[in-house]
Amino acid sequence: MISTRLTGRLGIEAPILCAPMAFATGGRLAAAVTEAGGLGLIGGGYADPAFVEAEFRSAGNTRVGCGFITWRLDTDDRALHAALAHRPAAMMLSFGDPRPYVAAVREAGALLICQVQTRAGAVIAAEAGADIVVAQGSEAGGHGAVRGTMTLVPEVRDTLGTEMLLLAAGGIADGRGLAAALALGADGVLMGSRFWASAEALSHPRHHAAAIAASGDDTIRQRATDIARGYEWPSQYTARVLNNAFVSRWEGRPDEHRAAASAEREAYGAALAAGDPEAVGVFVGEAAGLISDAPTAGEIVRRTVAEAEAILRRGPTLVT
Amino acid sequence: MISTRLTGRLGIEAPILCAPMAFATGGRLAAAVTEAGGLGLIGGGYADPAFVEAEFRSAGNTRVGCGFITWRLDTDDRALHAALAHRPAAMMLSFGDPRPYVAAVREAGALLICQVQTRAGAVIAAEAGADIVVAQGSEAGGHGAVRGTMTLVPEVRDTLGTEMLLLAAGGIADGRGLAAALALGADGVLMGSRFWASAEALSHPRHHAAAIAASGDDTIRQRATDIARGYEWPSQYTARVLNNAFVSRWEGRPDEHRAAASAEREAYGAALAAGDPEAVGVFVGEAAGLISDAPTAGEIVRRTVAEAEAILRRGPTLVT
Repeated sequence: MISTRLTGRLGIEAPILCAPMAFATGGRLAAAVTEAGGLGLIGGGYADPAFVEAEFRSAGNTRVGCGFITWRLDTDDRALHAALAHRPAAMMLSFGDPRPYVAAVREAGALLICQVQTRAGAVIAAEAGADIVVAQGSEAGGHGAVRGTMTLVPEVRDTLGTEMLLLAAGGIADGRGLAAALALGADGVLMGSRFWASAEALSHPRHHAAAIAASGDDTIRQRATDIARGYEWPSQYTARVLNNAFVSRWEGRPDEHRAAASAEREAYGAALAAGDPEAVGVFVGEAAGLISDAPTAGEIVRRTVAEAEAILRRGPTLVT
Repeated sequence: MISTRLTGRLGIEAPILCAPMAFATGGRLAAAVTEAGGLGLIGGGYADPAFVEAEFRSAGNTRVGCGFITWRLDTDDRALHAALAHRPAAMMLSFGDPRPYVAAVREAGALLICQVQTRAGAVIAAEAGADIVVAQGSEAGGHGAVRGTMTLVPEVRDTLGTEMLLLAAGGIADGRGLAAALALGADGVLMGSRFWASAEALSHPRHHAAAIAASGDDTIRQRATDIARGYEWPSQYTARVLNNAFVSRWEGRPDEHRAAASAEREAYGAALAAGDPEAVGVFVGEAAGLISDAPTAGEIVRRTVAEAEAILRRGPTLVT
């Protein structure tokens, strides 16, 4: 076991949280991560109350948290309240201003996790009263921004001080990444892509296969997937996906793409359902280059902890 | 002291190399890093033979290496041969195909260091016969590409196997970064920005002050500095600098900038000489947010090692 202030505060055995990935982290995956000793966060994503209800049911009686795309709540926050009614262990907010939702999270007794992509965002999160801050680097799959994990984590640590519980995210997919995150000053990690390619994830097995075949070189930050789906993301965020035929066709031509997107939306949805890895966004990060299988979430947690333990134990042998 | 296979192979005391930064790593800085227990690499940069001669003289009898921007050698490699005549400990090649220069490096008895920015580049470096590969993440100051350090280092390790000597670069500026790099599978680190802001660097103290005041949030990858200076960089490389008035004025308008650049070149040079931090590129990485002073290179090496030692020693206490 690896014990940090995070494991103590959350009452968990491994300092590993599963990212609340939209359309990927359902209740089954979140529960499996918790059962393996970490904490799973259901991907509330674009805030569909029916999805949230269904996935909390899938998690059963297992203790889980949840997370939302914050700007999406600004027009309709019913899904947040639906999630909080299930008394989640933690509520993570990312991509937007968390402040309007802090009181509701507190009132429900959930820990407030704020994910940030910049030093400036970390300052806002701390002022908002976050219990845990996640510093997410650009390596991450799906939405994120431009700072790298290697500098963002220690800079956020220096900015927020030693007391704040801090998680590293972005490019962490094995025990090397966990041990590196702890060295950088984090109290644990939030892993997305690694759990996205797991047996319990809602993501498609054909997408997993495409990611397993890919290098981190084959991923790209882009906006075409948002245009295709009709999501109006704030301009500072892009989404990392595999650089496939769909991305090559549309990225860099937003005006033409917008003009065509409505007519193509039905076909996009059908390709998504079929798991076509070339016709839609495949939401995986640079960690694709570190992923060579799609095991159970429990196996991922066990492997990651065992590898990190070996690295941590080796530390003093390098000091002579 | 921190001992790795790198320190053994190079016969040094700290697994820390100073990046061969164009216009910043002169002979004095390179020698200071070597004297502190690491290895300094003179920044051969754009391959001016007179500069290289002068800086090897500044290094005196101290053992140093050198590095060049590889594509720049493709039209004129006299500076490479001038450097090799000084019998450097190592020759680093980055940003281009190293293969045409391998024989000359070997003949001079120098270790060949190849810096890469992708998995694909690492494969080429290994095939070329690199003794040491540097995996440089996008966090780095100056020229680089898009992969983050957090994933590039372990993926290159997995790709090249356990035998290859591997350094991490990009966003490493203190003992946390060094310890994290070792956890990721590197045998040591190449630090640029941290040494760029040192007493011995050729970079301007007014630029150091601007970087000290900045967050990593304030840096940006861009091409305007290359257009201003008339350098024809291959399109896969951009340069990270502070996002200042100069960058805001020109970035994203390459055609207008090219039309204006010749007429403005003299003014750019004058502003550079004056150390104006708003009128020219300030070549520092995301590590700007981790830099709060400009001490001697020796002090930087000592601090980095001491901090990493403490982190490495703490490792087993986290395993319970």
